[in-house]
Amino acid sequence: MAAPREPILLTPGPTPVPPPVRQVMAQPMIHHRTSEFQAILKEAGAGLKEVFKTSQDVYILTSSGTGAMEAAVVNILSPGDEVGVIQGGKFGERWVEICRAYGMQVYPLEIPWGKSLDLKKVKDWTQGVTSREFKAVFSTLCETSTGVTFDIRGIREAIGPKPLLVVDAISALGAEPFDMDGWRVDVAVSGSQKGLMLPPGLAFIAFSAKAQEAAAKSRLGKYYFDLKLAKEAWGQTDTPFTPAISLIIGLVESLKYIRSVGGVDKLIARNHAQAAGIRKSLTALGFEMYADPACASNSVIAAKVPAGVDGKDLLKRLRSQHGVIIAGGQGKETGKIIRIASMGAIGPQEIRAGFEALEKVLTEMGWKVGAEHAR
Amino acid sequence: MAAPREPILLTPGPTPVPPPVRQVMAQPMIHHRTSEFQAILKEAGAGLKEVFKTSQDVYILTSSGTGAMEAAVVNILSPGDEVGVIQGGKFGERWVEICRAYGMQVYPLEIPWGKSLDLKKVKDWTQGVTSREFKAVFSTLCETSTGVTFDIRGIREAIGPKPLLVVDAISALGAEPFDMDGWRVDVAVSGSQKGLMLPPGLAFIAFSAKAQEAAAKSRLGKYYFDLKLAKEAWGQTDTPFTPAISLIIGLVESLKYIRSVGGVDKLIARNHAQAAGIRKSLTALGFEMYADPACASNSVIAAKVPAGVDGKDLLKRLRSQHGVIIAGGQGKETGKIIRIASMGAIGPQEIRAGFEALEKVLTEMGWKVGAEHAR
Repeated sequence: MAAPREPILLTPGPTPVPPPVRQVMAQPMIHHRTSEFQAILKEAGAGLKEVFKTSQDVYILTSSGTGAMEAAVVNILSPGDEVGVIQGGKFGERWVEICRAYGMQVYPLEIPWGKSLDLKKVKDWTQGVTSREFKAVFSTLCETSTGVTFDIRGIREAIGPKPLLVVDAISALGAEPFDMDGWRVDVAVSGSQKGLMLPPGLAFIAFSAKAQEAAAKSRLGKYYFDLKLAKEAWGQTDTPFTPAISLIIGLVESLKYIRSVGGVDKLIARNHAQAAGIRKSLTALGFEMYADPACASNSVIAAKVPAGVDGKDLLKRLRSQHGVIIAGGQGKETGKIIRIASMGAIGPQEIRAGFEALEKVLTEMGWKVGAEHAR
Repeated sequence: MAAPREPILLTPGPTPVPPPVRQVMAQPMIHHRTSEFQAILKEAGAGLKEVFKTSQDVYILTSSGTGAMEAAVVNILSPGDEVGVIQGGKFGERWVEICRAYGMQVYPLEIPWGKSLDLKKVKDWTQGVTSREFKAVFSTLCETSTGVTFDIRGIREAIGPKPLLVVDAISALGAEPFDMDGWRVDVAVSGSQKGLMLPPGLAFIAFSAKAQEAAAKSRLGKYYFDLKLAKEAWGQTDTPFTPAISLIIGLVESLKYIRSVGGVDKLIARNHAQAAGIRKSLTALGFEMYADPACASNSVIAAKVPAGVDGKDLLKRLRSQHGVIIAGGQGKETGKIIRIASMGAIGPQEIRAGFEALEKVLTEMGWKVGAEHAR
């Protein structure tokens, strides 16, 4: 059976793009070197500062979120720098990969997937693993691959004031509480296709004053992601290279929407309130939660695929028969977990439709929904 | 007076995006890890090979065109490599900047802006400037900043078979004749917002077998633009990072349109046929052509702003009073030239509207249209 025309996206990125946002992006193309587009850039920049909770400029990059992660690394570090990475899933691994690709001395702190961060261990690791202090510590705010959020404020306290604290807030921005300045984060990166309800294609990055000082001393080659070029252009309400115009026009619309619901904290509270219901429904169907309750994200809910159910087949049937897209596991959890998002424009209607389909498909696959199952 | 709602874009990027392309991009978001999107990627890849005229895979990057230029540099070179850059405008300068940012030994061959390339000089430069042969020679196919096209086939003959030939076809792809394999180009890069009639936000890159061998030996740090990751993902009809989904959906539609008019060569011929008319109309208004006729592009027509006319004011009036956007000069030619594009979906209607506005504004500014003017 063909999928219905309008898919129901319950994935932690891309998330559904609201019709008004899609509509403004479909308007005739405009040129980026006009006062009209400058006004758009200005508005987007102001809205992003509110969402990041920072007094610093937030630069808009034309790239995937990973491009902004790379921008963080190449701007603040130099070859051979010693850095720590809190690594509890696929996206923590990505920090390790990028830092190694650029010749850093990387010390990962491995957290078992789905498990809580022990801040005491973070403190010991920071002080004990290398003779010098880390130049930077990298973390993920919401580890999308496992549905775990890390306590960024606690990490800053554990590592002390000196190392640069770099946070991947790609799936977390607009979806998990975040306070760049208040939590003393030095570099924060994000992407467009999660809590901001846009198509993928834009990334965002902001640097604290301390990170900007570090950037002035970095000896790594860079051009497309060079903060210096972004800064110079931004000073003239411009971008150094032709930006993804239509997506930035959409960004202004989605930021307007966030303001219209009372701001980013209200949006997050609304979506987090849905998480309890998602967990309850999953449990009723016979799923076991994947993430430790102490650190479980309220924007990405991960659950173990019941033994005897083929996880890949489950996702395929949901998609092909019902047009419902939920995420599977990534990396070593491929086929073993499912992940449902509660962020952006995902509302009760989408969640209800998703669970109706999930129940039907599980039944069809021979799983006794609601029965007592051996763990 | 406010600009009319629908702007008339006569700029060499972004170019107008046809309504059917805008429409498909406005459809509800879909997920990139689905068979539905794999079919889209496959179709986009096949269409791009036709437009590049290559048997190699063309990788889709989520970035501005400059990102693909950087991808070319970081994949095939190592620090200290000696490279030549044919530099006849702002985008030739960009190759120099990127290569220097990554520690190359750069030997630019400076061509006066707007002037023809002397292939004899190219040959001498290749053989005389350094003790070794260049590892790579970088050129621009259409130097958008000056409206000049360089003879890439001739450059290959002049530099001989050994150096890697890297071509910026960002504004030229789909707008100027190009034959990657036939002209023995090793790396070709392009962008979405020119001849391909899409919003900016995608870039494209293809590597010859020789360039892929060079890439295996490159010792430059890279991650987001790493060919190895792109190749691995592409082998599974995937991209290494979440791609700009909506723009790729638009790409398939614009490639369909190109096929519907009989292919890329037909599209180019149609648009080039307009160039003669644009030159004639500009001359009739009193403009002098900027580019040497021997090398003048038929997709970007550059003309000198008549003495006594304020070039910046001219563009501003066209935009604010008539919604007509034409490009001004870049770099050292800012305010001194105008540039009108004949590429993508720019047709007789847009060009007529543009010239009507141009004549009105010039008259309003006190310029005696059509009169004999001292040069």
